[in-house]
Amino acid sequence: MRRIVVLSGGIGGARFLRGLKRAAPDADITVIGNTGDDIHLFGLKVCPDLDTVMYTLGGGIHEAQGWGRADETFTVKEELAAYGVGPEWFGLGDRDFATHIVRTQMLEAGYPLSAVTEALCQRWQPGVRLLPMTDDRVETHVLIDDGVGGRKAVHFQEYWVRLRAAVAAHAVVPVGADQAKPAPGVLQAVEAADVIVFPPSNPVVSVGTILAVPGMREGIASAGVPVVGLSPIVGDAPVRGMADKVLAAVGVEATAAAVAQHYGSGLLDGWLVDTVDAHAVKAVEDDGIRCRAVPLMMTDLDAAAAMATAALELAGEVTAA
Amino acid sequence: MRRIVVLSGGIGGARFLRGLKRAAPDADITVIGNTGDDIHLFGLKVCPDLDTVMYTLGGGIHEAQGWGRADETFTVKEELAAYGVGPEWFGLGDRDFATHIVRTQMLEAGYPLSAVTEALCQRWQPGVRLLPMTDDRVETHVLIDDGVGGRKAVHFQEYWVRLRAAVAAHAVVPVGADQAKPAPGVLQAVEAADVIVFPPSNPVVSVGTILAVPGMREGIASAGVPVVGLSPIVGDAPVRGMADKVLAAVGVEATAAAVAQHYGSGLLDGWLVDTVDAHAVKAVEDDGIRCRAVPLMMTDLDAAAAMATAALELAGEVTAA
Repeated sequence: MRRIVVLSGGIGGARFLRGLKRAAPDADITVIGNTGDDIHLFGLKVCPDLDTVMYTLGGGIHEAQGWGRADETFTVKEELAAYGVGPEWFGLGDRDFATHIVRTQMLEAGYPLSAVTEALCQRWQPGVRLLPMTDDRVETHVLIDDGVGGRKAVHFQEYWVRLRAAVAAHAVVPVGADQAKPAPGVLQAVEAADVIVFPPSNPVVSVGTILAVPGMREGIASAGVPVVGLSPIVGDAPVRGMADKVLAAVGVEATAAAVAQHYGSGLLDGWLVDTVDAHAVKAVEDDGIRCRAVPLMMTDLDAAAAMATAALELAGEVTAA
Repeated sequence: MRRIVVLSGGIGGARFLRGLKRAAPDADITVIGNTGDDIHLFGLKVCPDLDTVMYTLGGGIHEAQGWGRADETFTVKEELAAYGVGPEWFGLGDRDFATHIVRTQMLEAGYPLSAVTEALCQRWQPGVRLLPMTDDRVETHVLIDDGVGGRKAVHFQEYWVRLRAAVAAHAVVPVGADQAKPAPGVLQAVEAADVIVFPPSNPVVSVGTILAVPGMREGIASAGVPVVGLSPIVGDAPVRGMADKVLAAVGVEATAAAVAQHYGSGLLDGWLVDTVDAHAVKAVEDDGIRCRAVPLMMTDLDAAAAMATAALELAGEVTAA
């Protein structure tokens, strides 16, 4: 299991990855990061999931918050607000701004996002190879009621951060995904992998968006290596975030078993559910997905490492079977 | 003297303008700001002279320093440096960054610099109408020795800030000026003016650059109203900055009289020199420029206001003559 590929969203994926590095210190880890929740703010390109992975693995993350930089200040944002320039609902700190300035400057100079991400990681040394799922523009939109009898699409960040997912999501659309190509190195990493892991990231707007890039699902299914996942749903509720809201939009129950079934046995070989969801193991296995119940609360690095170890063990079982 | 037009650079012009507002509280003041020292840094459009005027008149300036924001922090810049992204020699603070972000975002949305400047001034309420000299790109370059026997052109900011004008300037070239058009409202303000003032700004890289925009010099000369200036050279040395260095590049002595002669009687009707340069009054008047010696050190707002009053009085003399 030397070459590990992880499809990651933000906080959950990043914390799992920190555990995975601890659990498999000699592994060659490639992270395929979701870029569907990227957003242009103040003329700058912001990549929340890539940055959360980079900051978390590079030691710059705001630990309690899970996103953004430690020791952050918000002078630029306050000044922008003084100019009447928003949005104010998106928490961009001064340290964080520098990342977006560097990224935007490089993108405007013609570098693809994958090259920019590599350059940013030169500073952070995350200890993994971090690849955006695509260099093309994909923007996850959420269809909500418009308040006057119809529906409207809003950017995922607006739904998630501004609206706090408090309104019903009727659909989640990764706009542009159908035209996107996997970033350089992505399919090669999948092909060369010994194991592919879906961390406890959002199955719809994180892992689901990555899988929506043409070639990803097929590449993973045909890689001929174990594909194992960890449930982001524990005891019928998302561990963090509001995954239940977007699961409902795609017609999937917010249960550990339903998420496994959503990925499907054509893609997923193994699935970890939390011990409180042990009752679900049989249903998942009946669907042709090997399933184990282990603690899935990433309360600290040790817990995350234990989860990673369990995922790799499950992959070993799949291989041996 | 209700309608006053001032051609302004940065610190000297801004401080004079504050005095002028005090001296002529009911005047309708239009400031034509130099944009030749504008620079793109970190992918952002920075307009040092416009911002210095805006911050100074709007109460946001760092008083002791004369440029930049009061209570400034430098988190973004430090973070950019941590990414290896410079230049480090240009002091962009966090508060200041917000201005450049708003400006760049508006420019990229298609607004001309004049409209952007107006929008920024909505916040600062400088109490004057601040117009960039042009919406077109003009970039002042300075020709210096390249250290290997030849010469090279550097951006004015690099010459001024990074090199601290410590090397000889062989030429000062406002690149693009010959193709630039005065910004909307500029020539109209000149035409409608009751008096036109050259504050103690740099006669080469500030006022000189504004005058290099086609139509400016002719518009001012043909406005038929007094044009009065204040010497930025006191006792054969620049009051601030390194005006002597760029004066040498255009073959002008760093004396109050030589600067008046450089502007010339075709343009300039009146000239104020400092009392220590009273000996120069006759030479200036012999050149057909009415001249008075008054204190020209802007030690505080009262001093600046007294200078503005003297300039307006001199303009009155010109009119009466």
